[in-house]
Amino acid sequence: MSAPPTIPRRRYVVLAEGAFGELASKTAMGVIRYGPDPVVAVLDSTRAGRNVREWLGDRYDIPVVATLEEALERGPTALLIGIAPQGGRIPPDWRRTILAAIDAGVDIVSGLHEFVSDDPEFAAAAARRGVELVDHRRPPAFHDVSSGRVHATGKRVILTVGTDCAIGKMSVALELRRAAVAAGLRGIFVATGQTGIMIEGWGAAVDRLVSDFLNGTVEWLVEQAEDMGDWIFVEGQGSIDHPAYSAVTLGLIHGSTPHGMVLVHQPGRTEHHGWEGRGTRLKSLPEHVRIHEAIAGLVQPSRVVAIALDTHELSESVARAEIDRAAAETGLPADDPVRFGADSLLQGIRSAVP
Amino acid sequence: MSAPPTIPRRRYVVLAEGAFGELASKTAMGVIRYGPDPVVAVLDSTRAGRNVREWLGDRYDIPVVATLEEALERGPTALLIGIAPQGGRIPPDWRRTILAAIDAGVDIVSGLHEFVSDDPEFAAAAARRGVELVDHRRPPAFHDVSSGRVHATGKRVILTVGTDCAIGKMSVALELRRAAVAAGLRGIFVATGQTGIMIEGWGAAVDRLVSDFLNGTVEWLVEQAEDMGDWIFVEGQGSIDHPAYSAVTLGLIHGSTPHGMVLVHQPGRTEHHGWEGRGTRLKSLPEHVRIHEAIAGLVQPSRVVAIALDTHELSESVARAEIDRAAAETGLPADDPVRFGADSLLQGIRSAVP
Repeated sequence: MSAPPTIPRRRYVVLAEGAFGELASKTAMGVIRYGPDPVVAVLDSTRAGRNVREWLGDRYDIPVVATLEEALERGPTALLIGIAPQGGRIPPDWRRTILAAIDAGVDIVSGLHEFVSDDPEFAAAAARRGVELVDHRRPPAFHDVSSGRVHATGKRVILTVGTDCAIGKMSVALELRRAAVAAGLRGIFVATGQTGIMIEGWGAAVDRLVSDFLNGTVEWLVEQAEDMGDWIFVEGQGSIDHPAYSAVTLGLIHGSTPHGMVLVHQPGRTEHHGWEGRGTRLKSLPEHVRIHEAIAGLVQPSRVVAIALDTHELSESVARAEIDRAAAETGLPADDPVRFGADSLLQGIRSAVP
Repeated sequence: MSAPPTIPRRRYVVLAEGAFGELASKTAMGVIRYGPDPVVAVLDSTRAGRNVREWLGDRYDIPVVATLEEALERGPTALLIGIAPQGGRIPPDWRRTILAAIDAGVDIVSGLHEFVSDDPEFAAAAARRGVELVDHRRPPAFHDVSSGRVHATGKRVILTVGTDCAIGKMSVALELRRAAVAAGLRGIFVATGQTGIMIEGWGAAVDRLVSDFLNGTVEWLVEQAEDMGDWIFVEGQGSIDHPAYSAVTLGLIHGSTPHGMVLVHQPGRTEHHGWEGRGTRLKSLPEHVRIHEAIAGLVQPSRVVAIALDTHELSESVARAEIDRAAAETGLPADDPVRFGADSLLQGIRSAVP
C-alpha cells in the first residue's frame, strides 16, 4: 500500500511486446487510458509503426515502436511492464530489454507476481545505475483477519463484480468514480490490482495477499477509503465462478460487504478467459445476479444494482440493443459506462442505494 | 511443502500457556491426538498438576507442568507452539519461554503466521545454540494458478467442510483416512493447515498462500495425493459463510473439486467462533448442504455426502439423539467419527461416491 503523494510522476515507455491491444495487455491499456502519467511510447515490435489511437481513439496519440532505442529517443523516465500474464512471472524474453532499460537509466515499474526488485541481476544493475525498481504488487505490511467492521454512517460501498476475469471491472469502477465526482459527490476508487494502483497511487493487489488476510485487508482498504470520501467504488477481481480466481473474488465480496454490486459483462463472451474450449459456458446475467446476491448474503445482504457491459467490439446500434436486452433480462439499469459515460448507471445506483 | 522422510522424529513439550483444552489450543490437541511424535509434557501454568488424560482419555498420560524447567526434566527435543491465535502472531509473553527453550538446546516447531525462523533474536539464539527453528506454515515454492486438472481415473476426492471454523474438519478427515486404510483402501490425508502438516509430515498451510495461487496450490496438493493413493481426504479450513475466512474455504472447494463433501458441525454451537454476540446465527444443516452444493457447482458438481458431528461435550445418549436428528434433517449418513469411529460414515460415503 502506498499513499498518493509517494508516487512520483513518471514518463512511461510501456512494454507490451507481442501483446498490445490483446487482453494480456490490459495493464498497458488501463495505464494509458486512466493513468495520470504520460506514456511516450509503446514497445511492441509486432505492431511497430501503428499508433495507440487506432485502439483507443484520437485522444491517445502514442506511437508503437519496435525497439527500446526508438522508445528512449522519446525521453521516458521509466519502463512500465504492460502485461499481466497468468501466474505473473517475468517473461524470459523480456529480461534483456529490462536490463537494457536499466542500463539506459530508466526506472522499471512492474505489477508482476515475480518482483523485479527481488531479481538479483536487475537489482545489481539498478544499484549500479541508480535507477528505481518498483513492484506495485508487493503486499502491504498489514497482516490481520477481518474484524467485522461496520461501514461508517453515510458511506456507500459499491463493488464491481463480473461474469469473468479480465472483463473491465476496474474501468467500470473508475468511470463510476469519475461520474460521481462530476456529480459533486466525494467519490473514491479503491484499487485492488496492480494496474489500479499504478493509476491511482494507492491500494493493494489483493491477489498477492496471504489468503488468511484477504477478507481483512479488503475491509481495511474500504475503511481508509471511507476516511477519504463518501461513495466508495471498489475494483473487483476475477469472478465467483472462475476455477482459478474465485477465492480472490469471494474475499472482495465478503471483505468489502458492499451496499451494492455492479455486474460487468462482455456480450459475446461465452467462456472463461484462459479456459476456452473446456465445455463450460458463462452463466446468464440473471443467474449471475442470483448467485452474487446469495453469496454476498452469507455474510451481509447485498444486491446487484446495475449491469455494465463492455460493447467496444460491437457497432453502436448492436451495443444499444445489447444494453436494452441486459436491462430487460435483469430488470436493472444497464449501460456501457466506458463507451457512453457512467451517468445513467450512477443514477440507477443512487436510486437503489439511497 | 515437506515430504514425509524430511520430518525428523522429535519428543515434544507443547506450549499452550493459559489455553490448554480450549479451542485456541487446537494445534496442541491435534498433535497429541493424531501426531506420530511423543509429547512428554504440556506447558500451561494455569492448569499445572493436571494430566492430558482428563481431556483426551486414558490413552494420553501426559503431565501438564507450570515451568519450562519441569518440562525439560522429561527430556523433550523440541518445543511445539500449541496454539493457533487469530492473525497468527507470536504471543509476546511467550518470547522469554521460547528463548529459554532455545538456550536449553531444544528445537522450536511453530505453525504461526509470524515465522520464528524470521525473528532476528530467535534466529541468532538458535544459530549460537545449534538448534532448528521449524515454521510449518511457510508456503511451498509452488506458484501457479489452477489449471483445471481432471482427477485421475479411479480416484475419489472427499473434502471436509464445516458450519464454522475450528469445528473439527481436520480430525474428521484423519478419522476417515484411518477407517479407509483399515478397510483396505489406499487412503491419503491432505493436510491444509499447520497442525495437519505437523501430524502428517507434508501438505501446505493454504491460509498462508498468495491468494492468486490458492485454488491452484490445492489442485496441486490433490494431484500429489492421487499419486500416493486412491481415496483422498482433504482437510477443510474455515467456513464458506465465515466473514474472515470464507475466501480460504472457497479456494479449497474450487481447487480440490471434490467428488463429495463431508459437512462438520458441533451441536450446540450457534455463532461463528470469534464472532460471538454479533447477532448472526449459524445456518441450519440443510441450508449448509444447499449452499455448499450450489457454490461447489459453480465450478464442478459436488454433493454433501455425510454429516460429521462433534459431540464430545454431550452425554452419549444426547449425542446419539443429535446424530439421529442430523441424519433425519438432511437425509444423509451422520455420526461422530472421532467418538464412535468413522466406519459408518465411510460406508455412507462409499455408497454415495461409488
